[in-house]
Amino acid sequence: MSMGSAAFVGRDTANSSLQDRLLDTRRLSTALAAPLSDEDQVVQANDDASPAKWHLAHTTWFFEAFVLAPFLEGYSLFDARFEYCFNSYYESVGPRQPRGRRGLLTRPSAEEVRAYRAHVDAALGRLCADGDSYAKAAELIELGINHEQQHQELLLTDILSLFASGPLNPAYRQASPGVLVRDVAPLDWVSFDGGIVEIGHGGNGFAYDNEGPRHEELIRPFKLASRSVTNGEWIEFIKSGGYTTPTLWLADGWAAVKTENWTGPLYFEEAEGGYMQMSLLGFRPVDLAAPVTHISYYEADAFARFAGCRLPSEFEWEVAASNVPVSGRTLGADLLRPMPADAGGGLRQIYGDVWEWTGSAYLPYPGFKTAPGAVGEYNGKFMCNQFVLKGASCATPDGHIRPTYRNFFYPHQRWQFTGLRLATDA
Amino acid sequence: MSMGSAAFVGRDTANSSLQDRLLDTRRLSTALAAPLSDEDQVVQANDDASPAKWHLAHTTWFFEAFVLAPFLEGYSLFDARFEYCFNSYYESVGPRQPRGRRGLLTRPSAEEVRAYRAHVDAALGRLCADGDSYAKAAELIELGINHEQQHQELLLTDILSLFASGPLNPAYRQASPGVLVRDVAPLDWVSFDGGIVEIGHGGNGFAYDNEGPRHEELIRPFKLASRSVTNGEWIEFIKSGGYTTPTLWLADGWAAVKTENWTGPLYFEEAEGGYMQMSLLGFRPVDLAAPVTHISYYEADAFARFAGCRLPSEFEWEVAASNVPVSGRTLGADLLRPMPADAGGGLRQIYGDVWEWTGSAYLPYPGFKTAPGAVGEYNGKFMCNQFVLKGASCATPDGHIRPTYRNFFYPHQRWQFTGLRLATDA
Amino acid sequence: MSMGSAAFVGRDTANSSLQDRLLDTRRLSTALAAPLSDEDQVVQANDDASPAKWHLAHTTWFFEAFVLAPFLEGYSLFDARFEYCFNSYYESVGPRQPRGRRGLLTRPSAEEVRAYRAHVDAALGRLCADGDSYAKAAELIELGINHEQQHQELLLTDILSLFASGPLNPAYRQASPGVLVRDVAPLDWVSFDGGIVEIGHGGNGFAYDNEGPRHEELIRPFKLASRSVTNGEWIEFIKSGGYTTPTLWLADGWAAVKTENWTGPLYFEEAEGGYMQMSLLGFRPVDLAAPVTHISYYEADAFARFAGCRLPSEFEWEVAASNVPVSGRTLGADLLRPMPADAGGGLRQIYGDVWEWTGSAYLPYPGFKTAPGAVGEYNGKFMCNQFVLKGASCATPDGHIRPTYRNFFYPHQRWQFTGLRLATDA
Amino acid sequence: MSMGSAAFVGRDTANSSLQDRLLDTRRLSTALAAPLSDEDQVVQANDDASPAKWHLAHTTWFFEAFVLAPFLEGYSLFDARFEYCFNSYYESVGPRQPRGRRGLLTRPSAEEVRAYRAHVDAALGRLCADGDSYAKAAELIELGINHEQQHQELLLTDILSLFASGPLNPAYRQASPGVLVRDVAPLDWVSFDGGIVEIGHGGNGFAYDNEGPRHEELIRPFKLASRSVTNGEWIEFIKSGGYTTPTLWLADGWAAVKTENWTGPLYFEEAEGGYMQMSLLGFRPVDLAAPVTHISYYEADAFARFAGCRLPSEFEWEVAASNVPVSGRTLGADLLRPMPADAGGGLRQIYGDVWEWTGSAYLPYPGFKTAPGAVGEYNGKFMCNQFVLKGASCATPDGHIRPTYRNFFYPHQRWQFTGLRLATDA
Repeated sequence: MSMGSAAFVGRDTANSSLQDRLLDTRRLSTALAAPLSDEDQVVQANDDASPAKWHLAHTTWFFEAFVLAPFLEGYSLFDARFEYCFNSYYESVGPRQPRGRRGLLTRPSAEEVRAYRAHVDAALGRLCADGDSYAKAAELIELGINHEQQHQELLLTDILSLFASGPLNPAYRQASPGVLVRDVAPLDWVSFDGGIVEIGHGGNGFAYDNEGPRHEELIRPFKLASRSVTNGEWIEFIKSGGYTTPTLWLADGWAAVKTENWTGPLYFEEAEGGYMQMSLLGFRPVDLAAPVTHISYYEADAFARFAGCRLPSEFEWEVAASNVPVSGRTLGADLLRPMPADAGGGLRQIYGDVWEWTGSAYLPYPGFKTAPGAVGEYNGKFMCNQFVLKGASCATPDGHIRPTYRNFFYPHQRWQFTGLRLATDA
Repeated sequence: MSMGSAAFVGRDTANSSLQDRLLDTRRLSTALAAPLSDEDQVVQANDDASPAKWHLAHTTWFFEAFVLAPFLEGYSLFDARFEYCFNSYYESVGPRQPRGRRGLLTRPSAEEVRAYRAHVDAALGRLCADGDSYAKAAELIELGINHEQQHQELLLTDILSLFASGPLNPAYRQASPGVLVRDVAPLDWVSFDGGIVEIGHGGNGFAYDNEGPRHEELIRPFKLASRSVTNGEWIEFIKSGGYTTPTLWLADGWAAVKTENWTGPLYFEEAEGGYMQMSLLGFRPVDLAAPVTHISYYEADAFARFAGCRLPSEFEWEVAASNVPVSGRTLGADLLRPMPADAGGGLRQIYGDVWEWTGSAYLPYPGFKTAPGAVGEYNGKFMCNQFVLKGASCATPDGHIRPTYRNFFYPHQRWQFTGLRLATDA
Repeated sequence: MSMGSAAFVGRDTANSSLQDRLLDTRRLSTALAAPLSDEDQVVQANDDASPAKWHLAHTTWFFEAFVLAPFLEGYSLFDARFEYCFNSYYESVGPRQPRGRRGLLTRPSAEEVRAYRAHVDAALGRLCADGDSYAKAAELIELGINHEQQHQELLLTDILSLFASGPLNPAYRQASPGVLVRDVAPLDWVSFDGGIVEIGHGGNGFAYDNEGPRHEELIRPFKLASRSVTNGEWIEFIKSGGYTTPTLWLADGWAAVKTENWTGPLYFEEAEGGYMQMSLLGFRPVDLAAPVTHISYYEADAFARFAGCRLPSEFEWEVAASNVPVSGRTLGADLLRPMPADAGGGLRQIYGDVWEWTGSAYLPYPGFKTAPGAVGEYNGKFMCNQFVLKGASCATPDGHIRPTYRNFFYPHQRWQFTGLRLATDA
Repeated sequence: MSMGSAAFVGRDTANSSLQDRLLDTRRLSTALAAPLSDEDQVVQANDDASPAKWHLAHTTWFFEAFVLAPFLEGYSLFDARFEYCFNSYYESVGPRQPRGRRGLLTRPSAEEVRAYRAHVDAALGRLCADGDSYAKAAELIELGINHEQQHQELLLTDILSLFASGPLNPAYRQASPGVLVRDVAPLDWVSFDGGIVEIGHGGNGFAYDNEGPRHEELIRPFKLASRSVTNGEWIEFIKSGGYTTPTLWLADGWAAVKTENWTGPLYFEEAEGGYMQMSLLGFRPVDLAAPVTHISYYEADAFARFAGCRLPSEFEWEVAASNVPVSGRTLGADLLRPMPADAGGGLRQIYGDVWEWTGSAYLPYPGFKTAPGAVGEYNGKFMCNQFVLKGASCATPDGHIRPTYRNFFYPHQRWQFTGLRLATDA
């Protein structure tokens, strides 16, 4: 059985009602957790990750705290103690289970969390049935949907981290290894003009606060690689001494290489006859034609320097993406791994396969203001010390992609589906 | 249902066959895990603790590696990868899952571990049916039984640590609070002569290697308190500034007080009208007449100094215990918490309720030699930096008690059922 | 005696020969160390700081390694082992004393380091006398001068950190407390237009590689405060709960507040009747009218949010500064502390008093390339995780200021003379 | 000049007045610091070590706080702030410079500390001239002398640690390498009877509180090696895989080997043609016939196991030493390094050369009570987690040796002159 093929496909955002998308999103979380035992769901793989059960409960709490409690008359909390358990980082809301101790919450049980989800889903149904409340809550329901989609991707990357932690290397999804050696699409360069461009979300449809305000940026002529950097190219980097040549690296990056003993991407293992890598499909030979993934910003930056190129800025990327269809091999493609670029011309892999590190620090756009109240903590307070990633990955829910999307992680983090695309000045 | 009342009672060691005791021990582990969900069993509460599932599997691996593999002809391993997963610290055996990462093993699942136990139990049955192999393996079966009993106590204390980690404070066993304010038995002193005494195991029956060789020690006249120090007495210590007076403490102890912000025993919380403490029966008012528990050696030592007394040496304790019946409120009493001392004269609570810190460093007895091979790693390599505890606790399996028993923990550790009994020079 | 009044004044860059400036710079380092005992010079105050002796030696090694060894024929190293001791971070050059262990170098002694300086100074004299070599080396001599100037400021801030580490609070310079309560200049706003502006160094005179290439940036209309934020204003922030209100802070900043127990700027201490602060003039009452200093980026950002404003971008700052005379109360003013803004209109304190945190991450300008060889490690490899500061401080050598200067520190660092100036959108 | 040959020789304790010994002790500290620059004296080599200046000042403060302030009428403190600077660990006295930050005290200067010493020495002279006060203070003067002697040894081992921290490897004392290859005295065994023996100080003369009360211990027949284990024997241990064989080690010891990457004694470096080791005479070839030194308890224990022996108990050692003259190559021998055992029969090297780890945990003797007041903190509060060492080293002041002396260090510590002597059961 392909567990998710139907469930994972995103509904067409433009033509679906908010309530339909809400239902689909809630169902998809449940479907994503279906291959996991209760044991798999409770453990926290590392300090960056959260347990799957926690993701399922936290996203539910988000609807309870920000949608049901304020907008559904007569709503009663499922369990008042869950706020402490499942509040992530909302200081305005109150104290919470410390982040590094989320994996100690064997209680409430997975079963109770499923009941919690059902309780909240039923209440959301009542809310949607009340036109007036529904209208008032719509904006926060939309936020809750998008919030849950983000956690869907995290659920998958966190499970991968967990499954890579022991000797059994279980697969989230069983799959045949398939044919791995393929011709890789040649790397071409696509050129773009400079000038004043419009950046950021300004039109219809949902976007996070950090994608606006839409504003002008000045860019210079540049070229962007037609596809992501591949595993084969990365292995060349390794073999050329990439991880032992300090002058290729930012100082903080080189410190990480030495401290963490990095010799390749996360989950890479050298084996007889090549490299293996742990993945959602288990421990498999590395596909040389597929995009490299699970690399830090530091590694992306070092590779770009090695290649005589640089990373694109987030603005360059957004300009380049503006003429590309907003689709790709995201979660609905049901592949759960990055795939080689298709043959053909022009930009490929802009969405899907792997997130692409940009050289842009994650900072507020000009005129950015946080919203009042707890939801104002959603994005703004993280605008420091992180870098912007663009695009989407094989684990990003369909419908959760757009050219203005700004994903962000710390430069040392590697457990997401992170890759890179080269850029140069024109 | 009182989950364990029958299951927890130990069989009379003297009059039971080895095989019967093996069966009982294996069943008891399963019974102890019965109130736990699979989620509860997989998580590691802290670096000192192990997951319940790991205890269940490790004790099983012990029989597989040290009894079945060498002694049962044709035995085939359940899964060769389990050695890596469930070897604890046997360097002679090979590499293993790092101690602090035992909680990441969601795979093998609890269900597979139960199957592993069944597989090994069946094989042990075949071994016992073969008189010759049974005879050869008897000594290691006995060790395996005792080893599993130690992990039974750890399973309970580790679960308590886990259940104390979140806001829900689940009870391992539901229980009514009962009547808590009771008259505490007055503390009397029992006097003992000095002289040359025989110490250590030398007779019949099982004992660990660290309990021998039996040898002479010279002791001086001393007095021992008739019962353990109570919670009520400990609260006096707290209120008298025990945790804020550095001169009461060993230097390393005072450093722990400051670093760890200790203000009372582990799991103590000041509440309106008194103190509460997390326990296997849930979060409950502290029983003033019951022995204080979950204290470090440092705290025991400071309390003794505060009281103008000292801790007994392990030799004094053993001498005093030599005329006391080897029984008490251990696991078979099915109480799961320390109880107030009975009224009456003479030494009480020597076994059961709480382990008692002694002032003796855990060191080899004169003439001690480790056994060759991996089982030689069982006790000897830990003879450094720890202190000896004597007696037994409310979580110690019946039959796992004797006067020569030497339990040992680091002086900062508090998650066991540790208490103290005062001593003075005569 | 005013120890440095003459020595500290910078020579007019435009009208001085390179050799004269070299001599002055080398003399100034020696003058700055003059009030320090050999003991003061050897100790490393913290992991961010270096010993004064190390600064004196490292700057000398810089000339030896990058100017004398390549350009002065027949130059012989003073001591070949000094490269290990005094190489800072040049991976291309070779291994070195670990950064956190610079304070263990009691040998070579301060006396030997003084001899090292004399040896190198003499050789630099010979080099300058040889017109051909001088010309070839000129660019690196210029870099060496500027490099040494940077270390002059660090020497002072590192000594302040050291002198604040013990109970004696020695003053680097004795001074009378003076009149501290003064009328503070009112805070006005100066408005600037938006548009495409030229940013970065492109003209004559020395600049670091990180100040170029000169390029166009698009900015929006903005307003800049006429002066720096004062201690008085900062104390209002403290009293209004600035350090206890998480919603004012970036998430990483709030984590620092909690972990480091920040309750005010570095060296601040609440005292009867007000605040005291350790300074180069000793432990003194805080001057309410003077700029706040020794604040992190996190604190600057939180204050700006508290004030309903924001930090300027580095581009806005540079545009604003472009019409301001390049002078201010820098090291030559011989004050060694930030002073209140002068009365009057327009922008004040652009240079001198305190460095000003901007909201710009320290990243390469478009088209930036690192130089080949070891000097390529000078700036480029730090372009990650830090923020740009503009202006100059009371400890910045005269002549080491210009509008395009990009200083940079990690957002948690506070031991420099760091302050802030508010900005808003127009 | 041999800096110390005269100064280092201890006065005959029995035949010298207390005042003479006080003067000698105070002079010796000064003499020991004479080869050090002020820079050498201010730096703290590691968290276990203290700066030489701190030793000089702390021992002076000890006399000021415990002798002069209570016993010399009209004594005025040199500087009241010095108590904060130079109190070591006396909680009863008050707060102090944190232990790990003693090296930040560039002020008070070495010069001021010398003046402090002169001030206190003069006052001690006045005290000794007043018969009545002298008599009352005599016991604490004696303690102060012995206290200062302990710090004299620490001053030397701390300086060695400092001088080993950088690339220049300075020698505390210049010396010719001398002839290093010598015939090592064969290792013989000396046998001792078992029985009840008297242990601890009970006679005349000074002893620390931790050496008493004198009491009976029961020992068993044993044999003691005639000399210390040599470097040559240790190198055999290394070459036989001593540092790579976990079963030779205590568990905590093996953890230290792995964490700290131990491959030989502290300061050992493998070189062409053999081993080198940093010493007070500089970086020199290892003398194969001399006692191994700078080893932890863990290493001593592992070596003994490797050799099929064990460490002696402190009681065995004291019994064996009771018939050996109380003399050896201590500080007055002016060698500053351990020397090969003399030829001949019977026990050699009991005192001098290296301290010998025993297998005895450092615990109170039966009946031990701490003194009231701050001096009660001298020894008692450290009776946990450490092991007893017996004898004396090449850095122990003459007169500071006796059979009952109990030195103690943590089992991982290696910066003292620590070695071992083998024992076995008879």
